[in-house]
Amino acid sequence: MSFLTQASAAKEASRSLATASRATKDAALHAMADALAGAETEVLAANARDVRAAEAAGTTAAMVDRLRLSPARVADMVQGLRDLAGLPDPVGDVVRGWTNPNGVRVRQVRVPFGVVGIIYEARPNVTADAAGICLKSGNAALLRGSSSATSSNTAVVTALRTGLERVGLTPDAVQLVLGGREVTTEMMAARGLVDVLIPRGGAGLIEAVVTGSQVPVIETGTGNCHLVVDAAADHQTALDVVVDAKVRRPSVCNSLETLLVHRDVAEEFLPKALALLAEHGVTVHGDPSVAALDPAVVPATEDDFTGEALSLDLSVAVVDDLDAALAHIRRYSSGHSETIVTDSTRAAERFTTEVDAAAVLVNTSSRFVDGGEFGFGAEIGISTQKLHARGPMGLAEMTSTKYVVVGEGQVRG
Amino acid sequence: MSFLTQASAAKEASRSLATASRATKDAALHAMADALAGAETEVLAANARDVRAAEAAGTTAAMVDRLRLSPARVADMVQGLRDLAGLPDPVGDVVRGWTNPNGVRVRQVRVPFGVVGIIYEARPNVTADAAGICLKSGNAALLRGSSSATSSNTAVVTALRTGLERVGLTPDAVQLVLGGREVTTEMMAARGLVDVLIPRGGAGLIEAVVTGSQVPVIETGTGNCHLVVDAAADHQTALDVVVDAKVRRPSVCNSLETLLVHRDVAEEFLPKALALLAEHGVTVHGDPSVAALDPAVVPATEDDFTGEALSLDLSVAVVDDLDAALAHIRRYSSGHSETIVTDSTRAAERFTTEVDAAAVLVNTSSRFVDGGEFGFGAEIGISTQKLHARGPMGLAEMTSTKYVVVGEGQVRG
Repeated sequence: MSFLTQASAAKEASRSLATASRATKDAALHAMADALAGAETEVLAANARDVRAAEAAGTTAAMVDRLRLSPARVADMVQGLRDLAGLPDPVGDVVRGWTNPNGVRVRQVRVPFGVVGIIYEARPNVTADAAGICLKSGNAALLRGSSSATSSNTAVVTALRTGLERVGLTPDAVQLVLGGREVTTEMMAARGLVDVLIPRGGAGLIEAVVTGSQVPVIETGTGNCHLVVDAAADHQTALDVVVDAKVRRPSVCNSLETLLVHRDVAEEFLPKALALLAEHGVTVHGDPSVAALDPAVVPATEDDFTGEALSLDLSVAVVDDLDAALAHIRRYSSGHSETIVTDSTRAAERFTTEVDAAAVLVNTSSRFVDGGEFGFGAEIGISTQKLHARGPMGLAEMTSTKYVVVGEGQVRG
Repeated sequence: MSFLTQASAAKEASRSLATASRATKDAALHAMADALAGAETEVLAANARDVRAAEAAGTTAAMVDRLRLSPARVADMVQGLRDLAGLPDPVGDVVRGWTNPNGVRVRQVRVPFGVVGIIYEARPNVTADAAGICLKSGNAALLRGSSSATSSNTAVVTALRTGLERVGLTPDAVQLVLGGREVTTEMMAARGLVDVLIPRGGAGLIEAVVTGSQVPVIETGTGNCHLVVDAAADHQTALDVVVDAKVRRPSVCNSLETLLVHRDVAEEFLPKALALLAEHGVTVHGDPSVAALDPAVVPATEDDFTGEALSLDLSVAVVDDLDAALAHIRRYSSGHSETIVTDSTRAAERFTTEVDAAAVLVNTSSRFVDGGEFGFGAEIGISTQKLHARGPMGLAEMTSTKYVVVGEGQVRG
């Protein structure tokens, strides 16, 4: 089937989804969950084929791990769909409303986008998550997974579509988009048919979509996250937060990449920090003043400060003052989550006001910047762009609004 | 000066604007107003040069009219800046906030975008309006006017920058971007330096920016607006609303382009409507059943239903039922403002739910879809896209948000 045929079918499906009641959508989510649970054998067999092909192609172990499904991962996907059914429906929410002096009533009401395209890499669990979030928010989903996960994604989507049919919704509400790279290009050119594109994956994928798309994009970003230990920092708090943000799950975007230490406290703080980080298996890439403290410190290169390591590597630099810390962040930040540890209200205020990022944190871990931790119940990603949504995106961020204006014959004249 | 130099200066300026207090910004707006009022003679002389050049080049009278400034239009620009000073500052508004179970406090706070690029056509009054709205919302403005208005825009921006300097703000907060078409291309490629682009003008300009830009765009749209006279319509209300929406100011985007009349009431309603429209100098382009009623009706072509006439021309068609009206709107609507006149709650509910547009209206005029009428105090345009802002855009729509997350050492573990 051609992409344009799929996209037209999605547009058509989006019209019935837009007026579907919460009860219908929740029934569909449970039916999708049931069908996916029932197809566990087929899904795991399909996934095993993808995994064998990836291993034969010499894919890295980390990539194969992201691709691999297990009964537990399938169970998580099933539970994720059921959890979505328990969340409030954002569609129909009145964002604000008022009555004009002439009696005309205006309401701004949440409505679905219509058709949402998700372009993502090799995690097949994204297929069920994204389909569920789109359905709950009343959007038709065009799911463009990576070719290495085609068998897994096909098995998952087949099950989800069966679920939709069981409750009388059109299966075209959830479609997998297959084909070569030219299909991604078609998807990015499909203005008018696709309402929003959301890339989920590495920096290369996101950059390609953001620069290549004529369809509006929500950029879910990479996280080159910094933590500043201010002159007025409580050192135990700083140590706790650094370990939490760096060590617990280094592969995620809200984990710590760079530690900046105020020169006034570097001599006291750094030896404690280096010892603790070493205990946790962290390799420190330090600037000259950090490297001088410990032979285990790897001299930091420009690349260490620029990129997102997503591993147990941490770049560490000493900064002369808060201004220097702010300048470093301005230069290298990807605008995701930036943290200061300080007991100074003045430093905290400057940091939260001047740092330009989706989230700015004081005395707590950037690992809290997450849809689940924010209580959104579901998360399609963390936006690092400034338009529409910034930070963790829940169901409300998957909607647009319309103004409903009601009168009794009033005219402007 | 190269565009990249200007954009870098704007980025730098945006940092001080982001932390400027409302008092500072309001003082700047009054100083800009004073400086513009003081430069009236220079501005009018510069505008006279633009007008002479446009006339010599054979520009249409309507275009020359849009280009022309008068003492009254300059006074309006001055007053517009003063009015902005009286509006609340959106920056710093807390959109929502909560405390997590672990005591971590989360606030979502309005912040400026940073650098806003406005690409617009020949109305020099947009220069002062856009500069003022950007300044009040804490954004640096890169103003790309049309070459036909270069002298006028230069005179206006020179005055505005003088005002900024008088209150100690950097004049780079407001910059005019000059040069050939390649500069527009540079502007659309300036991701990272320009945060948002807003095109204001005709369909061709908007299409070029939306499809060509790598910088996120807010599409301010053309309005191919429809009005449906339902079977259950009050005819006097329908006549009042049609005349208001079509006749009062046909050149604006929220004016009426197409009238769709339910077949059940066509025979009774149309003769009254055609007579009234003729009285108001409206040329009706009708489908065969409308044309059969009156020799003055011009047979409608496909183009009459597709485009935005922005003149005293109205396309009129008879539709079999509400479904046919909804299908017509789905096919031709630009997603701006769509109206139904009906006394049926069921028809009103279907129309407002099923029509996919920035604004849907019942028994009142689409001319109310306007930032001023909505009480926003200022309007940068009316968005017809679904991302970020949809409908009239006031000061709040010129901002992004950030999450400020404050704890006392909490970690996620």
